[in-house]
Amino acid sequence: MLVPDLPEFRELRVEGVEFAFYSAEQLPEGEAEGLVLWLTPPGLQGQLLNWPGLKWVLTLTAGIEHVAGALPEGVTLYNAHRLHDRAVAVHVLAGMLAAARGLHRFRDAQQEGRWKRTLDLGTLDEARVVIWGYGHIGRILEDLLRPFNAKVTGIRSRTPDAERDAALAEADWVVLLLPSTPETKGIVNAEVLARLKPGAWLSNQGRGDLIDTDALLAALESGHLGGAVLDVTDPEPLPEGHPLWQQPNVIITPHIASTTRDLIRRGADYTRAFLTEMQAGREPEGRVEAGQRY
Amino acid sequence: MLVPDLPEFRELRVEGVEFAFYSAEQLPEGEAEGLVLWLTPPGLQGQLLNWPGLKWVLTLTAGIEHVAGALPEGVTLYNAHRLHDRAVAVHVLAGMLAAARGLHRFRDAQQEGRWKRTLDLGTLDEARVVIWGYGHIGRILEDLLRPFNAKVTGIRSRTPDAERDAALAEADWVVLLLPSTPETKGIVNAEVLARLKPGAWLSNQGRGDLIDTDALLAALESGHLGGAVLDVTDPEPLPEGHPLWQQPNVIITPHIASTTRDLIRRGADYTRAFLTEMQAGREPEGRVEAGQRY
Repeated sequence: MLVPDLPEFRELRVEGVEFAFYSAEQLPEGEAEGLVLWLTPPGLQGQLLNWPGLKWVLTLTAGIEHVAGALPEGVTLYNAHRLHDRAVAVHVLAGMLAAARGLHRFRDAQQEGRWKRTLDLGTLDEARVVIWGYGHIGRILEDLLRPFNAKVTGIRSRTPDAERDAALAEADWVVLLLPSTPETKGIVNAEVLARLKPGAWLSNQGRGDLIDTDALLAALESGHLGGAVLDVTDPEPLPEGHPLWQQPNVIITPHIASTTRDLIRRGADYTRAFLTEMQAGREPEGRVEAGQRY
Repeated sequence: MLVPDLPEFRELRVEGVEFAFYSAEQLPEGEAEGLVLWLTPPGLQGQLLNWPGLKWVLTLTAGIEHVAGALPEGVTLYNAHRLHDRAVAVHVLAGMLAAARGLHRFRDAQQEGRWKRTLDLGTLDEARVVIWGYGHIGRILEDLLRPFNAKVTGIRSRTPDAERDAALAEADWVVLLLPSTPETKGIVNAEVLARLKPGAWLSNQGRGDLIDTDALLAALESGHLGGAVLDVTDPEPLPEGHPLWQQPNVIITPHIASTTRDLIRRGADYTRAFLTEMQAGREPEGRVEAGQRY
């Protein structure tokens, strides 16, 4: 079994499993039946995916677009949604509350050392929240939002257009949790943004290219859009001098929605549970079916 | 009935109640049985509290320390906790999540136009949260925290010292919701701060003078305290050039925890419900008993 050479993985013990460790500096020798792919050094992934004897790959990410196209025939792919879902849902809510309570503006005032009050603050009470891409993360987010009295509507790629448009037109918040596929690229364009209520906020925690960045900037500058919370951007990383940095009601975090200080510990724990299932002859969760893109 | 001269109060209609409106520019004439005190122009409060015929005062604030000492004998005082509690609880959680997700540091990086990742982020999963001053707001906060899997302990002024100290020693977060009384002034001093776990965070949404500011600065500068979220400060407003402004892990908001853009609308609604109760011969909620200080 090939796993990343990290202290947390060095400590793994699963009956019947022999571990070998890969890093940018050193690759193990011999065949391997399984590969745990994570935090992989650039350039190493292709070699790992074509390892002799490989039957399955577990990517400890939620997305699979970095692997799916490069997987040799006959190798089964698993992903690890559950490892990331909770932190992402918490991160989404953190951004929504920060926006509602004006924390970004107060931070700017703090930088200037100014006690600057404003009354233009909200709670999420009665807020209509549309979760676009309603899956595991969306359900956790809905649980977190329940005691705030927010009204959640989940829409998916199979939601009829008219229903989707009606939901968007009423939303105070649109939370994007869609995967990146050819069909979702640029799905939030000028037309969709124009359909939103004036003052609505957008949160993107899916992939940067879901949003047409130029259309987003135009909607912010016209004042039609209340603001945006972006953990992902297009381009990403957002380069120095990009106009999004300067938008007062854009809250940018650097693609860390699923990050927690104990993520590697949790990744190792996830791997142990995964291998234990597999050794017991049960199918571990997260199997990616043929044709599935996320 | 004397009420503030605001459009939302001009629209009030309650059977059997005659309204008169006060403002800095104009005071009404004649006697008044009741006074709704809110957003009162400076210098006007003394005159209003001594109005001829006055039997009761409703202050649409949660705190009463600005009124209690100035109330003529025989006049009953009511306050309006419920009007503010929910927004305060939401504001507390917004600050805790912002700290956990590093939003303050990412905002600073955004100001510099820099995509600067860090792994030192958390959720509130398993976090031990001590709510010091566990009343209406504390219970709402506990409801909001439940789906995050935080572990809440409420302590009050009557909690035995040993029990309080044990709770503080284990806390990842200490949330101060205490009122300002002679006994609570400076209650968070160097000794209490030293008792906290290294890296613990403090949230103060009660009154600025609960915390000894010099001791707070020392605990931040030594690195013992992880950080602080302050909606109230001592001195307040925090003056330009005060060292608290410059602390990277201090998140300051300008005493707006209970503020929402619809607060005046909600204050007028609260007043209508209050007067309807009173006209029906029932005791409205919020009566402040003799000797009660909050």
